[in-house]
This record gives sequence, structure tokens and C-alpha cells, in this order.
Amino acid sequence: MGLPDENIHPHATGRAATTVAEHQEPQDLIFYSGWFCPYVQRVWIVLEERGIPYQYKEVNPYKKEAHFLAINPKGLVPAIEYKGRALYESLTICEFLEDAFPPSTSSVLPADPFDRALVRLWTDHVNKQVVPAYMRLIQQQDAQKQRDLLAELTKALQTLCAQVKGPYFFGEQFTLVDVALAPWVTRDWVVAEHRGYSREAVGAGWAEYAARLESRESVVKTQSERVHFTEIYGRYLRDEAQSEGAKAIRAGRSF
Amino acid sequence: MGLPDENIHPHATGRAATTVAEHQEPQDLIFYSGWFCPYVQRVWIVLEERGIPYQYKEVNPYKKEAHFLAINPKGLVPAIEYKGRALYESLTICEFLEDAFPPSTSSVLPADPFDRALVRLWTDHVNKQVVPAYMRLIQQQDAQKQRDLLAELTKALQTLCAQVKGPYFFGEQFTLVDVALAPWVTRDWVVAEHRGYSREAVGAGWAEYAARLESRESVVKTQSERVHFTEIYGRYLRDEAQSEGAKAIRAGRSF
Repeated sequence: MGLPDENIHPHATGRAATTVAEHQEPQDLIFYSGWFCPYVQRVWIVLEERGIPYQYKEVNPYKKEAHFLAINPKGLVPAIEYKGRALYESLTICEFLEDAFPPSTSSVLPADPFDRALVRLWTDHVNKQVVPAYMRLIQQQDAQKQRDLLAELTKALQTLCAQVKGPYFFGEQFTLVDVALAPWVTRDWVVAEHRGYSREAVGAGWAEYAARLESRESVVKTQSERVHFTEIYGRYLRDEAQSEGAKAIRAGRSF
Repeated sequence: MGLPDENIHPHATGRAATTVAEHQEPQDLIFYSGWFCPYVQRVWIVLEERGIPYQYKEVNPYKKEAHFLAINPKGLVPAIEYKGRALYESLTICEFLEDAFPPSTSSVLPADPFDRALVRLWTDHVNKQVVPAYMRLIQQQDAQKQRDLLAELTKALQTLCAQVKGPYFFGEQFTLVDVALAPWVTRDWVVAEHRGYSREAVGAGWAEYAARLESRESVVKTQSERVHFTEIYGRYLRDEAQSEGAKAIRAGRSF
């Protein structure tokens, strides 16, 4: 008997399944994915945005199989193998893809050093403020604390919203801020249905920006059908999830 | 009446005071510092390592003065102003300095994309595992929890220690991992004196590596006298500190 999270739907569905089917041939870059994971989707979006050749391999990070632990000792997705060397952590991989595949037609970082820094600064805001608030909110069982956390999430998004230049966060260019945020935007229906969240409550322009992110081709192509997320998020909503992130939140830790 | 943290010693001392005196002339890059802050020291180390011209300005981040809030709305140090544009967050600034001042003789990131990624990965380990463990340990008042947190800090350092190539983390090059870690190594006497920490308990080679970090010229030149840290860390040790980091730790949050 393993953890309940082991019994997730075993593969991507919908548009993401088509994308997976198109990336089965061996390549220099192997992308170790879990179709449901928002951190995975960040890397996947960058691979698709930039047209980097990759081979997709599905991994169930809850099973911690030996062959994958050799790639990533933490047993977490996303991970990549590039010419025999392994790497993990979503944003580290995204930065690696910038460095290893120098921008020709596309890049998720601006060329100007100061603009790059601002993109990294707001990506950090997504990671440190938005994502933990979202995770704490879905796992929280107490009604009053849920209200406090909803206010916290909404405030973190308002801070971000005030900086959106449009159409994307940093203007015309689709950057790492959009990449880092998009997987949580495509999953915000969970907090909308169960925790009282609404895009409109964030403020003017947020619903439009969110809709723009979730209709971006790279996001659409890496998105599985909502029905298969329901069981996974049910465990988070009941605070029974066993992911490293879920356990960290439960222990009052960063992740 | 302000917060007790407002009454910190007002300026750098010892070797750091000499370094401050040498960086009073106006430059394109203004470095907003708090002499005592470990995040500040990261940026300062990089400025000194790379010989980047800068003007040093001392700020008391607890006072949140209006002129500084215009530079950094969070009111936190480190911050920089470069040709009229403002930036904050220690590692974002360090990455900016790499991008804006392209490596000639020195750099804190390796040239190879994969090596850069590994340096970023382990810098992230310092930020997410080592620093929070250290902060939680100094603020914790319960003896049993202190023992658990000491074990957690020691384990986070052991994980890092196993990867040290020597003489520095990534070999001959002094990289961002060393930069990110050094300010906590120069402050580990706090947990050694009050929480039972010992470098030797981390494992073979750790004490030597730590000594190498704290004797690095850029680290020595940015270090104030220990006596002036005593009052500041006293507030942490009694869990009375009012820094953003201290408050986040108290609330069981990441920072």
C-alpha cells in the first residue's frame, strides 16, 4: 500500500496528450514530467514557447522509482537530463534553457540587464507570495483562516496586478513572470469553486490578464483536462495530499 | 517610540568601516546597505569580488524613511540604484551585477550553462534550507524544538557539505553559492554560543570550508566587529526581533 497520491491518473489528457505524443523521439534533452504538476508546466511552457527539441517522459513523483532517483535524488518533477547531466527545480531549469539555448527568435527573459532583473524580481514574488498563499488556502480547513488566506492571496495578486503592463506582465514579451504564474492561473478554478476566490475581486484588468495567460498557445498545449485534476485537488482541499509542497505547508514551512 | 530594532549601532565598524570610507564618492551604482544584514553582505561581497565601482549608503531598514521607500517600496536592504532605476532582493541584485557588468576577470557564475544551473540550484538550497533553519533555530525558545532545529540545520549543511568540491563550493571559482552562504557562516558563532551548533558536527571538511569562506578577502572587507552584532542577535535569541524575516519565521511563513 503506497500513498493515496500514487493513484493519480497515469498520463496527460486532452491537448497535453497530443503534445506528449509529438515528443516521444529521443533527443539530447529529456524532460521528466508529471502532467498534473504546476511546476512541471512552467518548464513545459518554456520548452514549447522556445521550440526547444525535447523527449517527454512521464514520471509519478509519488512512487520514487529507483531509475528516477538516480536522475533527481529528491525524486521530484520537473527534472531534465541534458547530454547525460541531470537538473531539477523549475525556475533553475527555465534559466538553464535560456543559457543553453541562446535566444534567437524567442526568450522568456528581456535582453536589457535591468529588465531581466525586474522579471526575476516579480518571478520571485510569484514564488514567495502567490504560490504559498494559494497552497495554504487550498489546504486550510478552518473557515475563518480560509477567509484570511483568501485575502492574503488576493492581496498578493493585487500587488502583481498593479505591475502588469499588458498584454503580458512585462508588455509584449511573454516572460518568466507569466511562465511562473500561468500554471496557478489555469488552476485557480479550484479556489474559485471551493474557497470563494474570484478573478474580478483582484481588480481591474486581472481577469483579462488571466484569460490571456490561459489562452496562450504554450499554456493550452501543456494543459490536461480539468476532470483529471479533480481527484488530485480533492486531496489538497481535504488536506490529505502527500506532495513535498503539501507536507511543507502543513508543517508551516517554506518549500 | 519606534521598534527596538531601530536602535541598532548606526554604522559599520572594523574592516567594513574602512571599506565604507573608500566608497563615498558618487557612482552610477548606489548601494543601499545595512551593515549588519546578511542579505546585504551577499551583494557587498559581489561588489568587492568583482571590483564594481559603487557608492555606499547606510540605511536603517527598521525606520522606513520616506526617501528610501521611494527607492524600495518594501523598505528593505539590500537595494541598489543604477542610473536612476531601483532594484532589491539580494540574489536578484547579484544576478543583475553579472548581467550589467559582464565578466572580464571575475564572475560569481561559471561560464558553462549547466555549471551555472548547478550553482543556482545549490544557491537555492542555501536560501530554502540553510537560511530558514538557521533563523528558526535562533528564534526558537523551546529546548526540545531547538534540538530538532539544530539537527535540521546540521542536516541542511551536511547535504551542502557533501557537494563541496574545494577549495570553494564549486572548485577554484568563488561562486554565488559561497556568496549566498558566507554571511551565515560568519554569523554561525551565534548558534554555536547559544544553540549547541558546531562546525565539526557537520562533518569532514566543513570547518575548513567555513574558515576559507570567512577569510576570503571580500568577506573580511565587508564584516563589522562582532561586539555590535551581540545586541541585534540578542533580540533574535529572545524572539523579539522585528525584521521582516523574523516576523515571517514567527508566523510560520517563508520569507
